[in-house]
Amino acid sequence: MQGFGERVAEAIRDKRSPVCVGLDPRTGWIPAEFHDSARTPGEPAPLRQQASAVGQFCCEVIDRVEPFAVAVKPQFAFFEALLAPGFEALLQVCSHARARGLLVVGDGKRGDIAATAEAYAKAYLAPVEGNPPVADALTVNPYLGSDGVLPFIEAGAPGGCGIFVLVKTSNPSSSEFQDATDGDGEPLFMRVARKVREWNGETGEGRYGPVGAVAGATWPGHLADLRRAMPGSIILVPGYGAQGGGAADVREAFDRRGGGALVTASRSVVFPWARRGQPEGDWRSQIAGEARKMRDELRQVAGMS
Amino acid sequence: MQGFGERVAEAIRDKRSPVCVGLDPRTGWIPAEFHDSARTPGEPAPLRQQASAVGQFCCEVIDRVEPFAVAVKPQFAFFEALLAPGFEALLQVCSHARARGLLVVGDGKRGDIAATAEAYAKAYLAPVEGNPPVADALTVNPYLGSDGVLPFIEAGAPGGCGIFVLVKTSNPSSSEFQDATDGDGEPLFMRVARKVREWNGETGEGRYGPVGAVAGATWPGHLADLRRAMPGSIILVPGYGAQGGGAADVREAFDRRGGGALVTASRSVVFPWARRGQPEGDWRSQIAGEARKMRDELRQVAGMS
Repeated sequence: MQGFGERVAEAIRDKRSPVCVGLDPRTGWIPAEFHDSARTPGEPAPLRQQASAVGQFCCEVIDRVEPFAVAVKPQFAFFEALLAPGFEALLQVCSHARARGLLVVGDGKRGDIAATAEAYAKAYLAPVEGNPPVADALTVNPYLGSDGVLPFIEAGAPGGCGIFVLVKTSNPSSSEFQDATDGDGEPLFMRVARKVREWNGETGEGRYGPVGAVAGATWPGHLADLRRAMPGSIILVPGYGAQGGGAADVREAFDRRGGGALVTASRSVVFPWARRGQPEGDWRSQIAGEARKMRDELRQVAGMS
Repeated sequence: MQGFGERVAEAIRDKRSPVCVGLDPRTGWIPAEFHDSARTPGEPAPLRQQASAVGQFCCEVIDRVEPFAVAVKPQFAFFEALLAPGFEALLQVCSHARARGLLVVGDGKRGDIAATAEAYAKAYLAPVEGNPPVADALTVNPYLGSDGVLPFIEAGAPGGCGIFVLVKTSNPSSSEFQDATDGDGEPLFMRVARKVREWNGETGEGRYGPVGAVAGATWPGHLADLRRAMPGSIILVPGYGAQGGGAADVREAFDRRGGGALVTASRSVVFPWARRGQPEGDWRSQIAGEARKMRDELRQVAGMS
């Protein structure tokens, strides 16, 4: 089985696309046709109905973006908010994306130690009851250190699965702790980046390992440093689109051949009608159009031939 | 509705116990009577059967420890490892614990930003479909900064729910990032502790707020500093028992009146037979005995009258 980093790098090269579509399904923005019309107006639908709408809508989104994206990134929180039915919808969506040939990056931001980390890893990155793993990768929070990261790498390796470690997140307050500098002026996120390189083992540019890194498009000034610090890591770049990052801001995340990075957008692709609440016109084509536009912009910026 | 910190402080005072029992259900250690005897020997039971065993066993544990503990701390990873059936078992266990008058600390170590953090918070710390919140508190990872913490506090407040922020975790490699010192020699975990105090608002010793803190029993040298730095935080102290922390190691986590801290043990109370794999004799009494012993030790150490 090919290793995780190489699988992702190859998928990006083959499809000439670094696009990863974030699936953050807010029930209020899902087109009305997915909601049961029988429910009482003004009252929220029961969890099971909401979860069914979420699952069906996300599968439709996957079908529309599949020609342009290499990966989808379901945000676990929006599924967990619907409790057990939401969890079932998450599994349905992940399975559908894999069946369509897309990589699945589970955005769970999990992090725990030893046997506990192993339990999370087995849930998402290892085969269960003869089924393939739920996801190809999971986002992992590094605050607990190596004890909280290595079990994920080990559990994912046999199935070619990997992780994306949060290094420098896209939100404004990421500076509070991630930018804390040590006595030599090195920010914490660079210390985490050095550790990511170590966890990745023997890798290098064009030879990607199982440990990717999250680095927000909202901090373009740091992307070049992070690319150099972690030559063997696929960089997952959130914050493109609605969070304010543009195509030029993500340029430095790519390697010299225009590979090695996945750029994610959520709202701007999946809910281009978010400001109005509900879509007007042919929303399926609107989603496909946004995904295609993003791919075309990024192809140019990355210099993909 | 009484605030979270005061609810916990009062529960500790009323029961004269700071004991929190961690529920980390490893299916291999659950007594054989909970597993379906019809399954093929040597083969793992289907997820649904495993989840059913996990749910029933944890409810039994709750009944046995209830006289001695004030809280239970289900570790989400072991439930998630059983996917949707595991998630249902988690809800069953939380609901049972609350019905028995115990506080529920959901050990999910979640952490995300804005609407995403809010979605997690709504899943676990707010009423859903007329049911009370799943848990009274959730453990939260601070790596993302205030954006990743404040939504949990806001969502939990109306129902008297709160959070425990990971400050200094009990595992060996917690030193890698949490101990990184800034130019003034202050370790990151103390910076996080100062922020916890800020998030807590106007509090002080004997007046506990919604933001608790996790500080491992394995670092007794830091507990006194952390107690002083966060006078308005209930401290959740993991690492007691199997992880090596003893009663004397947790002394400094308590306030001057012997309150303000929850001490958690998992394996040593729930699976005292872990080294042998399966229990011998009356395991129900063994669990109750371990919980009582832990409570008595801690009563003495905390100087509870």
